[in-house]
Amino acid sequence: MRRGRASLEFERPPVVEAYASVAGKKEGEGPLGPCFDQIAEDPMMGKKTWEEAESAMQERACLLALEKKSIRPEEVRYLFAGDLLGQLTATSFGAAGLGIPLFGLYGACSTIGEALTLGAMTVAAGFGERVMAVASSHFATAEKQFRFPLGYGNQRPYSATWTVTGSGAFVLTEKETAEKKEQENTAGAGKKGRAVIAGVTVGKAADIGAKDSMNMGAAMAPAAYSTISRNFMDFQRDETAYDRIITGDLGEVGRTVLLDFMAAGGHDLSKVHMDCGIEIYDSQAQDTHAGGSGCGCSAVTLAAMILDRVRSGEWKRVLFVPTGALLSQISFNEGQTIPGIAHGVVIEHRDADGQEE
Amino acid sequence: MRRGRASLEFERPPVVEAYASVAGKKEGEGPLGPCFDQIAEDPMMGKKTWEEAESAMQERACLLALEKKSIRPEEVRYLFAGDLLGQLTATSFGAAGLGIPLFGLYGACSTIGEALTLGAMTVAAGFGERVMAVASSHFATAEKQFRFPLGYGNQRPYSATWTVTGSGAFVLTEKETAEKKEQENTAGAGKKGRAVIAGVTVGKAADIGAKDSMNMGAAMAPAAYSTISRNFMDFQRDETAYDRIITGDLGEVGRTVLLDFMAAGGHDLSKVHMDCGIEIYDSQAQDTHAGGSGCGCSAVTLAAMILDRVRSGEWKRVLFVPTGALLSQISFNEGQTIPGIAHGVVIEHRDADGQEE
Repeated sequence: MRRGRASLEFERPPVVEAYASVAGKKEGEGPLGPCFDQIAEDPMMGKKTWEEAESAMQERACLLALEKKSIRPEEVRYLFAGDLLGQLTATSFGAAGLGIPLFGLYGACSTIGEALTLGAMTVAAGFGERVMAVASSHFATAEKQFRFPLGYGNQRPYSATWTVTGSGAFVLTEKETAEKKEQENTAGAGKKGRAVIAGVTVGKAADIGAKDSMNMGAAMAPAAYSTISRNFMDFQRDETAYDRIITGDLGEVGRTVLLDFMAAGGHDLSKVHMDCGIEIYDSQAQDTHAGGSGCGCSAVTLAAMILDRVRSGEWKRVLFVPTGALLSQISFNEGQTIPGIAHGVVIEHRDADGQEE
Repeated sequence: MRRGRASLEFERPPVVEAYASVAGKKEGEGPLGPCFDQIAEDPMMGKKTWEEAESAMQERACLLALEKKSIRPEEVRYLFAGDLLGQLTATSFGAAGLGIPLFGLYGACSTIGEALTLGAMTVAAGFGERVMAVASSHFATAEKQFRFPLGYGNQRPYSATWTVTGSGAFVLTEKETAEKKEQENTAGAGKKGRAVIAGVTVGKAADIGAKDSMNMGAAMAPAAYSTISRNFMDFQRDETAYDRIITGDLGEVGRTVLLDFMAAGGHDLSKVHMDCGIEIYDSQAQDTHAGGSGCGCSAVTLAAMILDRVRSGEWKRVLFVPTGALLSQISFNEGQTIPGIAHGVVIEHRDADGQEE
C-alpha cells in the first residue's frame, strides 16, 4: 500500500527469516565483536587479491544465513546484491556465484537499505516466496578504489571514517513459507519472535554541495534528514513511534549534523538515534576517528545486533536508514560535489505467532 | 504471478507510457539515425568533462520522455537508473538530479533490462502509479573507464564492440493512470496502440571462463542463452511465440555463439533474432567492428525503434534481452573471468482500447 509520496506499507510484511554477518579482525575487536557470526582473522580470506577476499566474505555471509535455516540456494528466488566497488566487482565474483537470479544494486553505503527495500517489495507483492539481500565492503578494496594505496600509510583527518570489512546477508520470506520451513527444522528457532519489514521509504539524492571526501558524514546527513523527514510525513509519525532510528554510517560528525537538522524541523532525535558507524568501533581505542562506513557497516550491524533486539521484542519498531555518499574517484578528481542518499526500512517485532503485539 | 523458476507474468501489465532517446553523432549517422528523438552533435554536451556530458545526456532523455506526455517529475514515484561507470557516476550527477526517489542499478550493459524489470514489478504490484527507467553510456567515458585514454588511438580487434553514446528513458505506468493522462493531453497519442510489459525473466550470472575484454559478445552469449532458455521453460513457449527476440549488444560474434547454443538446445533463433548492437551501426561503413555495446545501446534502440513497432502492432510480442558483461578494470587487471548477465523483458502490443488482440 502506497503511503505519502515515497513510502510503502506492506499488507503482508515479509519476515526476515534468516541473517548472518561476517566481519573482519578489526571489527571483531570492536564492541560488536561477540555478536558476529564469523570473524575473518585473515583479511585476505585465503585469496590472492583484496577483491577476491571481499567476494569470498560476501558469499560466506550468504551461505551462513542460508545454513541457519537449512535453506538451499535454489529455494531463493531472487538475489539483491551490491558493494562499493566499480562495476560491483565484489558482487560479480561473490554472491553472483550462488546461481540465484540477480539484481545488482549500487547505493554506495546505503546499498543494504536499497536491497532490503526491493527485496521486501518483491516478497510483499507475491513475486517471490523467498529472496535474499546482501551487501559488503572491505577496508583494503575501498582504500584502493577511493583513496590511496595502503602502503602509503596516509594520514586522515578526524572527520574521516574507517571502511568496515564485512558482509551482512538477509533472507526475506513470505510468512507462510517461513512457517513451513520452521516446522521442517527441528530447531524451532522462530519461537523467539520475528522481525518483519513493515514498510519502506525510498530516498532521493540530496546534494548540498559537500566536496570533502574525508568528511562523508556531513555529505550524507542531509540525505538521512530527507528520508527520515519523509518517513515521518508519509506515515504521519514522529520520533516517538520508533524505539530506535538507526542511520548507517554518519559517524560522529554526521550524527551532529543530522540531529541539528532534525531539531530545526522540530524533532528531537537525540534519545532514539543510533548510528551503525558509531556502534561498530571503539573509536578512541581503535583509532577509527569519526566511525565506521561502507556497505558492510550497516549490513553487519543489522545482522549482528539490531535484528536480535527486534526479534526479542526489546525494540518493537525500528527505522533503519543506511546512508550512502555518491562519489567516485573520477567525480572527486573532477571536482564534483558528493550527493548523499538514504533508504528507510521500517522493521517491526512480531510475537512467535506472527501477531503484532 | 510467478512463472517457473525465474519469471513473472503480470496480471495488470504496466504500460510504456512514454519513452525517449538521445544519441551521439556517430549513432545519428547510423541506420537508426532518423529514429532518435535527439542527436547530440557535441559529444561534450556543452560540459567540461565526458562524465558530465553523459550525465547531461541521461537527464535530457528523462526530460524528453516526460515532456512527450506532459508528465512532471513529481508525478513519477520511483526512478530506476544506472550506467556503466564506477559508482554510477553518470547517474549520480544525471537522472538522480531530477529529485525522484532513486534505485541505483548496475547490470553492466543489461542495466536497462534490470531497470525495466524492477520498474514493471513495482507498477504491477501497485507500489507506484508511475515509475521511470533510464540507462546511459558514452563512448569516451567507457574507454576511459575500461580501456585506454582516447589520445592513445589504440587499435582494436574485429571482435571488439563500440560503446554507444546515448541514453534511453522509459515511463512505466498503470493503465488507468496512463489513460487519465491521455485524456488530459489533447494530442491523444495513445490511439496508436500501446506497448505493455507483460512479463519478465530475471537473469543470473553465467561464467564460462571468458577472459577477453575485446570479445565481450562471446562472454555475454551464454547469459543470453541462459535467460532465453529460462524464458521458454518458465512460460512454456518457444521462439514461435515471439515476433522478435532482441538481445542487447552481442554483436556479430556473440550472435553466432548464441544461435549455435540455441540450435544445440533445439531452437532455431535465426529467423526471429535481432541484436541492438548489430542494428545501431553500419559496421562496415562506420568501422565499428562487431557492433555496438554499452547500457545505452539497447536502451536507445528500444526507444528509437522497437517500441514503435510494438505499439503499431507490426510486432505483437517481443522478448527484449539486454546483455551485460560483469567486468571492471580491476577484475580484468587481476586476471578474472568475465561473467555475463541478461534480463528478459516480454513486451506486448495492446490495441488502442488496451485489449490484447
